[in-house]
Formats: sequence, C-alpha cells, structure tokens
Amino acid sequence: MPVTAAPQACDLLIEAGWVVPVEPHGVVLQDHAVAVSAGVIVAILPRAEARAQYQAAQVVSRPGSVLVPGLVNAHCHNPMTLLRGVADDLPLMTWLQQHIWPIEGQVIGPEFVADGIELAVAEMVRGGTTSCAENYFFPDVQAATYSRLGFRALVGLPVIDFPTAWARTQDEYFEKGLEVHDNWRRHPLVSICFVPHAPYTVNDVALERIRMLSDQLDLVVHCHIHETAHENTEAMKQHGSRQLARLDRLGLVNDRLMAVHMTDLSDAEIALCAERGVSVVHCPESNLKLASGFCPAHKLQRAGVNLALGTDGCASNNDLDMFGEMRTAALLAKGVSGDASALDAATTLRMATLGGARAMGLGERTGSIEPGKLADLTCVDMDPLETQPMYHAISQLVYATGRHQVSDVWIGGVRKLDAGVLVDMDIPAIRAKTRQWRNRIAGIKVPA
Amino acid sequence: MPVTAAPQACDLLIEAGWVVPVEPHGVVLQDHAVAVSAGVIVAILPRAEARAQYQAAQVVSRPGSVLVPGLVNAHCHNPMTLLRGVADDLPLMTWLQQHIWPIEGQVIGPEFVADGIELAVAEMVRGGTTSCAENYFFPDVQAATYSRLGFRALVGLPVIDFPTAWARTQDEYFEKGLEVHDNWRRHPLVSICFVPHAPYTVNDVALERIRMLSDQLDLVVHCHIHETAHENTEAMKQHGSRQLARLDRLGLVNDRLMAVHMTDLSDAEIALCAERGVSVVHCPESNLKLASGFCPAHKLQRAGVNLALGTDGCASNNDLDMFGEMRTAALLAKGVSGDASALDAATTLRMATLGGARAMGLGERTGSIEPGKLADLTCVDMDPLETQPMYHAISQLVYATGRHQVSDVWIGGVRKLDAGVLVDMDIPAIRAKTRQWRNRIAGIKVPA
Repeated sequence: MPVTAAPQACDLLIEAGWVVPVEPHGVVLQDHAVAVSAGVIVAILPRAEARAQYQAAQVVSRPGSVLVPGLVNAHCHNPMTLLRGVADDLPLMTWLQQHIWPIEGQVIGPEFVADGIELAVAEMVRGGTTSCAENYFFPDVQAATYSRLGFRALVGLPVIDFPTAWARTQDEYFEKGLEVHDNWRRHPLVSICFVPHAPYTVNDVALERIRMLSDQLDLVVHCHIHETAHENTEAMKQHGSRQLARLDRLGLVNDRLMAVHMTDLSDAEIALCAERGVSVVHCPESNLKLASGFCPAHKLQRAGVNLALGTDGCASNNDLDMFGEMRTAALLAKGVSGDASALDAATTLRMATLGGARAMGLGERTGSIEPGKLADLTCVDMDPLETQPMYHAISQLVYATGRHQVSDVWIGGVRKLDAGVLVDMDIPAIRAKTRQWRNRIAGIKVPA
Repeated sequence: MPVTAAPQACDLLIEAGWVVPVEPHGVVLQDHAVAVSAGVIVAILPRAEARAQYQAAQVVSRPGSVLVPGLVNAHCHNPMTLLRGVADDLPLMTWLQQHIWPIEGQVIGPEFVADGIELAVAEMVRGGTTSCAENYFFPDVQAATYSRLGFRALVGLPVIDFPTAWARTQDEYFEKGLEVHDNWRRHPLVSICFVPHAPYTVNDVALERIRMLSDQLDLVVHCHIHETAHENTEAMKQHGSRQLARLDRLGLVNDRLMAVHMTDLSDAEIALCAERGVSVVHCPESNLKLASGFCPAHKLQRAGVNLALGTDGCASNNDLDMFGEMRTAALLAKGVSGDASALDAATTLRMATLGGARAMGLGERTGSIEPGKLADLTCVDMDPLETQPMYHAISQLVYATGRHQVSDVWIGGVRKLDAGVLVDMDIPAIRAKTRQWRNRIAGIKVPA
C-alpha cells in the first residue's frame, strides 16, 4: 500500500490490536486500523501506515481489543423483549396458548412495539449487534422506531391467516404492508421484506401473492420454516407434501428466502437449499429452549448453504446476545454432528455477520470490514482476565468472550456505544417504561 | 420469627431484593436479608425485621440484586486455564495427542499449577463461584494455592497408570497423595479426595486400593466415567463389561463417587446410580465442544440422582463461567429430551450449588443459604437492561444473566469481590504471569 506524501482527511480512524474483517475468511490482522469517511469504510491498513496516510477528525485507539463487523441478528421478535422470562420451562403449546398469546392479546399495539424495540436496541447495541431482521406486527411502528434510534433493520410486512391487531383480512395485510413498503423504500437504515408467519399459518393464495410481489419489488421473504418435525407431519396430511416442497411449488424456494429454524431437513432438502441459494437462519438457543429439534447447521454449511444466526424473541431465549448465540451454535454443531471440528470459530463468526447480512439482502453493504462497505463496526475488549491468555482472536471471540466486553459500536459510522456507554439513548426513560410494562404484564391473568 | 427487644450483634448483614436459598427448592424470598457471624449464616429474614433484630458491623444493601449460594464448579482442571483457546475445533484425539499433551509435557510443574489456579480463582470469583473440585497433578501445590487465595476447593490425589511429572510409579502416586492428605486434613477451605483419571487409564489393583482408602479415610472419588461411548466399546473388549459395571465389581459405585461426564448411560445404569447414591457431574459445554455425546441429565434428575455441574478445563470449554454452564445445561436438556420442561431453572440452579456441594461431600457445610451453613454467598445485579423486565428471579438468573453481573462474593464470610472488584488478589501480577506463560506456550512446536 503506497504511503502518500500528504495525509488524506477522514472522519474516523479506529486502531485495534486485532482486526477480523470476516472477508477474507478466517483472517486476523494484527495491529491494524480502519479508516472511515462519510459513514463508509475507506481503508484497512497497518496501524503505523494509517497514522501516516490519514488525518482523522477522531482517532479511537484500542490496542487490547478486537474490531469485528457489527453483529447481525437475523431473526428476532424485538417487541417481545418486554416478555423476557414471563413463561419458561413449559411445553411449546402450553407456552404459546396459555401464556404468550393471551398476554400479547392484551398488550399488542403501537406502544408495545415501540417500547419493546427501544429496550431491544439498547440491549443489542450494548452487545455489539448493529442490524437485525425484525419479525412482528406493526411494521410502520417498527420502521419509525428503528429509524429514530439509528439502528439498521430489515422490517417485515406480516402476513398470517388470522385477524390481528395489525390487520383483519388478507387484503388488509397486503394493503397496509405495501403502504409501509412505499413509505420506507430506499431508507438508509430501514429495509423492507415480507414475513409470512409460517407455511402452516399462511394459505397458498397469500403465499403466491407474496412470491409475485417479492419478484416485482425485489423483496426478501423471511419465514419460520420446518421449526419442528410436527409441522411436516401435519403438512403431509393437509398438503400431501412437506412444507419446503409446498413452498417450492409456490415458487418461494429461491435466493430471496430467509428460512428460519429448519430443524427438520432431509439431505435432499439441504441440497435443494444449496442449489437455490436459500439462506438458513439458525436459532440454536430458541430451538433448544422450546425443544423444537436440531438444525443440521454443519450439514448446511458443508453443502454450501448461506447460514445466518438469530436469537429469536426474548420470550424463548431469553436474550439478544449474539456472543452467546455464536458460542451455542459452535458447540451444538459439534455435539449434534459428533465431530469436534464442525462449525469452527471463523465459520460461526461469519454466520453472525456476513451470512446474516447476505440473508437479509444487505451483503453488498454490510457484514464485513471491506473498503466501500458501511462502517457497521464493533470493538471488543480482550483485556479482562476471562479472555486471557489470548492465543487466537477468533477462537477467543466465539468460545470465551461475553457480550459485556463490547466497548464501542458504530452503525453507518455513527457512534452508538462509547467505551461501554450508550451515547444517544434515554436510559432512565427506557427503564421507566419497561417497569410500567412489567407491572401491567405481571398482572394479566392467564388461563390455568 | 420473634423480634427481640435488644438487637443481636452480627458481623455482616446482606440485604437483597431477592434471596434464593436453593433449600427449600424453588423458593424466592423478596426483600430479605442474610445475617452472618464468624463466617456462618445465622439467619435469613425479611429486611425490615433484620434491621430491628441485628446490629451488624457491616451492612451491604443490594435492593436490585439476587443473593444466591456461591456457585459450585464440580469439575475443573484449573491449571489449564493458561491453555484457554490454545487448540480449538479439533477432533478429540488430535486435540489431546497433538496439542494438549505435548504442551503440558513442556510446562507442567508447580509453577504452572500455581499460576493457572491463581488466574482461575480470579475468574471464578468474578463469576460468582465460591468452590470447585480440582482435578490435576501436584495436589500439594493446588492445596497451598487455594488455601493462600482463600478459595474453597476439593483437591484430588491423582492416580494414573503412567509416569507423570507428579509421580513415576503407582506406589509413588499413593505415597505422595497420602502425604498431601495428611498435611491438609481438616483444613477449613481445602478438602481432599481421590482423582483416578478414568477407568481406562487406571488398573484394577490401583482402583481397589483407592476404594479401600476411600472407605477408611471417608474420601470422595472424583473420576471421568463414560465420557464417550467409545470408552465402553473398548471396555467391552478389554474387561468384558462396561466401565461402570467394572467399577461396581471393584466396589466404587457408591455415595462417595463423583462420576464426571456420563454421556453413555443405559436406563439400568441410571437406576444403579440412583440406588447407590452416586453423584453425576454434568459438563455440558465440554461434552459439546469435544463431541463426546450427551449426558442424559433430565433422566438422571428424574431418577433421583444427585446432579452437579462443572465447566471442565479451559482447554475444552473455554471458560469457568457457571452462569453460561447453567444456561447450556438447562437448554440442552430440553433439546436432548424433546421436552421443553426438562431441567427447569430451579433444578439447574440447584445442580450448580447444593448438588455440587453434596457431590463433593460438602453438602452439610455449603451449597445453600441456611442457618448454620458457611457464608459462601454470591450477589447478582439484576439492574442491567439485559435482565429487565424481571418476572421470575430464578428464570432470570439461569436464562438471561451474565456472570459479569456478579457484584459481591463471600467465601466463609470473607469478602472476595466488592462491587465487582477483587479485594485481595494482585491483578497486575496475575496479568504479568499470564502473559509470560502465553508467550512461552505459543512458542512450543507441536507435532504436525
């Protein structure tokens, strides 16, 4: 890299003991710096060269830290952060029918969505996450809230065969959804996709309409698919085929599909996903907690399927901790495959960054530290005793690091976390609102 | 509880928003206080009564925190904390034969043991752990180090069929071990047990000698058993029976046995463990990482077997985080059993406290918050946004809390962590020694 005589101006220079760009895969750059201008990464270069080459308005020096791409949470229901731990250790149907749905029935609405997302964004930023794929009702409120908070989000237009507080009829789901799409297209932080709830809750006509609109408008389709084997037992009775085959008949199995969960998969289905460019969003902690089954992440990865990672909602996890999720994904893949080399640390970090960004249709803009990409960046302090001694930066990130070690976060070059402190959020107000929701929700009588 | 006219003197009164005593099971006491005198818990009572009834030399008030028994790490190899992350994502035999053993061969000795344990104790205390079952060489150095650091430990006398830096012959293992036993019997912090490495590395004569001495001296036997199914395939060839059956013939399957791992278990073996009062130490993260198999913790628990929880060593985990281990245990049991109600939060917390203490022969002295027990206590701050809103204290501890939320720790009434700060450890010295070991170990050439 040539050292120019006169240093160039840039907005921000972040120097780190280790930079893990994710692309190229598995690389660790020691004592490097990342230069940012106008929210975009302009260079990655050795620290000494950076100081000579750039005149930065701000220099952030973190010699004991690893700089990684901001983490991408590719599946969440963030308003449900207000339901964290409200009902645990219960069978899936008891949990849903006797706790989550009755509670949601009483609280759902624009305020619940906005307040839940605000709490979630605080948690995500503190934990190094810079973008998420949201899956809930009131996408208009979601988009407004993420945009107001300066957080990158793929907001979904929900479609489900039942009336909800958001829409009553199939037509209304599409009409209201498309209005949200029109209002938020080409926003720098908010992107729009479809979120049909699941194949077993959305009829063929609606799914065909989604496929057509997805093609026309170039929209990702983010959907729970094969969450449990039971789903396919029922599909065989009702449709004479498994759900993925049904979605394929409807034209939805393609490179716009974000297939979430996918615990029940044959080798042929894995091959189909690879061939069609489907992205699979692995949510290992939610799958474990609800006893849904094991997604064969190692097989998908070896087949060349793009893998992303998601926490799912806080009612079934119970956090938005992508460090914990990486660790669980990497460990579980080894246990499930019987192969201690399955889903290694670098592959897992890739799932949690570039894999997620690609799944969400943002792979050209974020998910790795490369010149020309948005400066979505997370700095992780490796100085605590818990990450000493340090032999391999990527191993340490995945197997030993806690999210509380995240010190600094930027989204599109805007500082969101500064040495552990959220810089632009009203924490006392978030706490007060969370307390109010807690008291209201704890008072709801659920059926025995 | 009667309120006396004149308040009693006590050393310490800890007031917490929630006290979870573990015994009785599943109970959460809101706004309670724990009074401590001479290192022993003297009372647990409502906060208002406590102030009237006790005149404490020190009052620690934590209205936003949960007070739990200090966590018990029932299986670790703490000197190996210096090998954290040195070799990851490798098949078991490659990991052991080409990395761990060659490195250990060059570094093992009194200094490695003492320095590794010191780093581990700092990590354990910061994470709310107050006692551990140690399993390594140089038990003399272990005992001296734990005692010097004021940490409660069950130190094991190693026995293995190979010469090591600690002892060369079978007789020497026993002679040196019994000398350690004689030097440390009846110590307030250090207890002694046997740690035969595993049934496949210890011969019948040595195991019989351990059984005899264990009976005579009333010593626990802490041993890796059925870590993998392969172990039993080999045992069938060599001994004509599975290892547990062989240990039973040798008289070792009894209520002094701490059986670690136990991934490969038949229903009859589970019933045998229950009948004989065996304790099983579940190490879910290590079992996952090394792809060893799944311990059927939910079946053992339902059969009435005493369950404990351990992290195993940092070369196969890669941390000593009992919060992470609780979470993994609770989640994995659900996935493995297919039952979302398996290993609920209260049962998991019990494994990580009283279950471990009982396994280690310390159940009468620690593991729960009860009058007359040692004041081994851990205070966990639930104020961070990541544990808001708060519906159920025990759920929150297991499913949403990070170890960095531990604020205060006492061992036998002695303050070890004060508002997040280690009070009696020389952190710069630990860092400097860890860095030296890191550089030395990173320079070791391992076979290709």
